[in-house]
Amino acid sequence: MHPLALTYFRELQDRICANIERVDGGTRFREDSWEREGGGGGRSRILENSTVFEKAGVNFSEVFGEMDAAFANHLPGEGTSFTATGISLVLHPRSPLIPTVHANFRFLTRGSASWFGGGADLTPYYPVLEDVTHFHRTWKAVCERHAELANYDKMKRDCDEYFHLKHRNEARGVGGFFFDYTGADRLDATFAFVKDAGEAFVSSYVPIVERRKSLAWTAEQRLFQEYRRGRYVEFNLVYDRGTIFGLKTNGRTESILMSLPPVVRYIYDYQPAVGSPEAALTDYWLKPKDWANMGLSDV
Amino acid sequence: MHPLALTYFRELQDRICANIERVDGGTRFREDSWEREGGGGGRSRILENSTVFEKAGVNFSEVFGEMDAAFANHLPGEGTSFTATGISLVLHPRSPLIPTVHANFRFLTRGSASWFGGGADLTPYYPVLEDVTHFHRTWKAVCERHAELANYDKMKRDCDEYFHLKHRNEARGVGGFFFDYTGADRLDATFAFVKDAGEAFVSSYVPIVERRKSLAWTAEQRLFQEYRRGRYVEFNLVYDRGTIFGLKTNGRTESILMSLPPVVRYIYDYQPAVGSPEAALTDYWLKPKDWANMGLSDV
Repeated sequence: MHPLALTYFRELQDRICANIERVDGGTRFREDSWEREGGGGGRSRILENSTVFEKAGVNFSEVFGEMDAAFANHLPGEGTSFTATGISLVLHPRSPLIPTVHANFRFLTRGSASWFGGGADLTPYYPVLEDVTHFHRTWKAVCERHAELANYDKMKRDCDEYFHLKHRNEARGVGGFFFDYTGADRLDATFAFVKDAGEAFVSSYVPIVERRKSLAWTAEQRLFQEYRRGRYVEFNLVYDRGTIFGLKTNGRTESILMSLPPVVRYIYDYQPAVGSPEAALTDYWLKPKDWANMGLSDV
Repeated sequence: MHPLALTYFRELQDRICANIERVDGGTRFREDSWEREGGGGGRSRILENSTVFEKAGVNFSEVFGEMDAAFANHLPGEGTSFTATGISLVLHPRSPLIPTVHANFRFLTRGSASWFGGGADLTPYYPVLEDVTHFHRTWKAVCERHAELANYDKMKRDCDEYFHLKHRNEARGVGGFFFDYTGADRLDATFAFVKDAGEAFVSSYVPIVERRKSLAWTAEQRLFQEYRRGRYVEFNLVYDRGTIFGLKTNGRTESILMSLPPVVRYIYDYQPAVGSPEAALTDYWLKPKDWANMGLSDV
């Protein structure tokens, strides 16, 4: 375990939740503290049916114990003993005009190996270039402040690769940054990077919410959002390593699946009208691009 | 491939769809014929937003080609060449008072090995003993007509074991029957059993729909149905072998995921009121019981 990281993640949960409550302006987070049978526990915070956020889950956990051997072999280190601490959040706004966002920062050990991982990615339904470039530029700036270990271009590509639905050959969203198994040889510098990234989350996302939260949306846009949320479920249940890690290590199911969207619609073989904003999502926005360096003139 | 099984499954799709349209009394199935890049194809039939059924998918497919080696090793036979033909259906009624049903019958080969598999299981939201016993008794009677190879008690237990959400320690529904890797040494007798089961599907389920389809339901019941449908998604995306087989063998995604419910609600840590019918679902009905031999006096 890394006591400083643990404390940092726990306090980061407080700061992020306070900022989400501020921009939401509605109800407060509900908190559930829980213990894990095999060792450790966590603190889950959830906002449901609030003003801006239809469902917002922010998890902190510190768990340890023994892993399934077959699963352990996919990780660095040796043996089946592990520790994991981190913060994980998924925010589902009610408005289809505000993107869903996910972020996660974590510290893990297996036997003698230890590493940080994390990242953040944005999933808009009706993307706006200003929002997408803002999100990416925030993370690029963080990486540039830690250039000795954090390569934004690589972390951006890794994010695109990770948040990809193979069975649909489709990106989950417009990406962000992603890193894993980082820090073995320079844990302190990596921790500094992780802290800087953790602090940047609010500034990466809240300005987007502020810009979009007063806009009216149509029933068609809402329907499209509910339909697209189905992809979020597909990704999280079929591919997401955090979800699978949680379910395989006897994590708390309700906390792990807090990431699932509140209302989802599965429509057979939905095809957006040619030239519509709904078609543009998959045809243009969900094809990875160098968003951080893109100006308004490039659209 | 087994040309007789292939023809049988294709014709069974016609008969089942005709019966679903009859009890639905609304729109007709829409049909999509598709080809699979690696070999074969299928015929997907879907009913959406109809009278009784909110979403009803009935798939027929005959596919062949090469499988991923790591995946192939979980199957009987040798090598990576495979063929698969079968019918698979999931019917999601609009009314929370009518159970969701799933059935699947299939014939597979890998190298020199070949086998049948299949089964049916019922997922009620507000179960009625009469319906649950009727469903189980139908399958028990089919098994008893093929007692030399079909052991209902075992197939019922295998169904309970298969349709189990490990991360929730919860059954998907009230079960039914399930068999796999069957027939290697007596393919003809197994085919006769599969045909008998295929013909029994309509009589296992349609009488339940007839009994419940005119009953009014409340908004609370509908909400609970949408919430419970989330479990169906969890099972299909995390555990279901058919879904995983389809996605891993480059199947047609829209046909594979036709099984997902039309509208789903994910609520954090939902707890039904003590003593409510919603609590009875998990506390009583989703604990496997010997439904086929249960009388009304046992409830």
